[in-house]
Amino acid sequence: MTNKIRIAIDMDEVIADTIDKFIELYKREHNTVIRLDQMDGKEFNELLPEEIRATLRQYIHQPGFFRDLKVMEGSQEVVKALCDKYDVYIVSAAMEFPNSLLDKHDWLAEHFPFISWKNIIFCGHKIVDVQIMIDDRIRNFVGFNGRKLLYSSPHNHLITEYERVNTWAEVANKLL
Amino acid sequence: MTNKIRIAIDMDEVIADTIDKFIELYKREHNTVIRLDQMDGKEFNELLPEEIRATLRQYIHQPGFFRDLKVMEGSQEVVKALCDKYDVYIVSAAMEFPNSLLDKHDWLAEHFPFISWKNIIFCGHKIVDVQIMIDDRIRNFVGFNGRKLLYSSPHNHLITEYERVNTWAEVANKLL
Repeated sequence: MTNKIRIAIDMDEVIADTIDKFIELYKREHNTVIRLDQMDGKEFNELLPEEIRATLRQYIHQPGFFRDLKVMEGSQEVVKALCDKYDVYIVSAAMEFPNSLLDKHDWLAEHFPFISWKNIIFCGHKIVDVQIMIDDRIRNFVGFNGRKLLYSSPHNHLITEYERVNTWAEVANKLL
Repeated sequence: MTNKIRIAIDMDEVIADTIDKFIELYKREHNTVIRLDQMDGKEFNELLPEEIRATLRQYIHQPGFFRDLKVMEGSQEVVKALCDKYDVYIVSAAMEFPNSLLDKHDWLAEHFPFISWKNIIFCGHKIVDVQIMIDDRIRNFVGFNGRKLLYSSPHNHLITEYERVNTWAEVANKLL
């Protein structure tokens, strides 16, 4: 533990590209093409035809789903640089999907090996004692009094009340 | 999320009897008998003959190790009662043992089904925003400014600087 300012960084849609995986999966398995620009302000499952909508939760619960996600562009370099200046924690609300826990651990060990296990938190409610939070879900900002950076994701595009970062380059500009 | 006072409750040696599992395991697999009263102020592995000491970490890393631990006496009833009065979080430094993550989730679902996934936190450093912490490891109290209740475990018997609880009945007396 250090005296540096602490940052909590979310995983899905912030450092891990979950939506890309959904798009590829539904193209391949269901012949259903969803484009990012259709998603503005919507959740991915809202765009699925109703008859296959329930499959999404089944996929998320499968072991392996979170293991091969693509890394969000620029996140590795910027998070590594943030680690020099801040005490960086990766905080994911993974507990809803118990089969994701080991996958998410192993994904972090592969792509963010400079993050110690001591700085990884899998939880439900994000009741973390940090000063800055980077997250794509405003529900995780409820009750948090520190600086909130809303990381842009199609589902949150219509939200205007928060300081927003669109890319990891913008995070670097603000915090480095 | 509620406005109740938040409590963080540890798992191993607080609600889950890890030492009992060690004792049974070394009796069965290594013909080595360790008694609780030998442990005063010591870690379990310090009591093992040197030639088998390294096996302990191997056992802890095995899938399944944390799945069948006994429940600490009285913990279910008292934690359930605490849930009425407080916002109770189970907080375990499980991240050091990635194979324990799913086991610990499933153990909680079996023995503490009244704890929502939203109130479970697996981490390294316990940087949780709570007011009360019940833990058997004083290293988890470092940097925590709330009320610290040291749950008695043989390895911490010689520590005198903290408010101590010896049983779940004592926790109930103090907090209910």
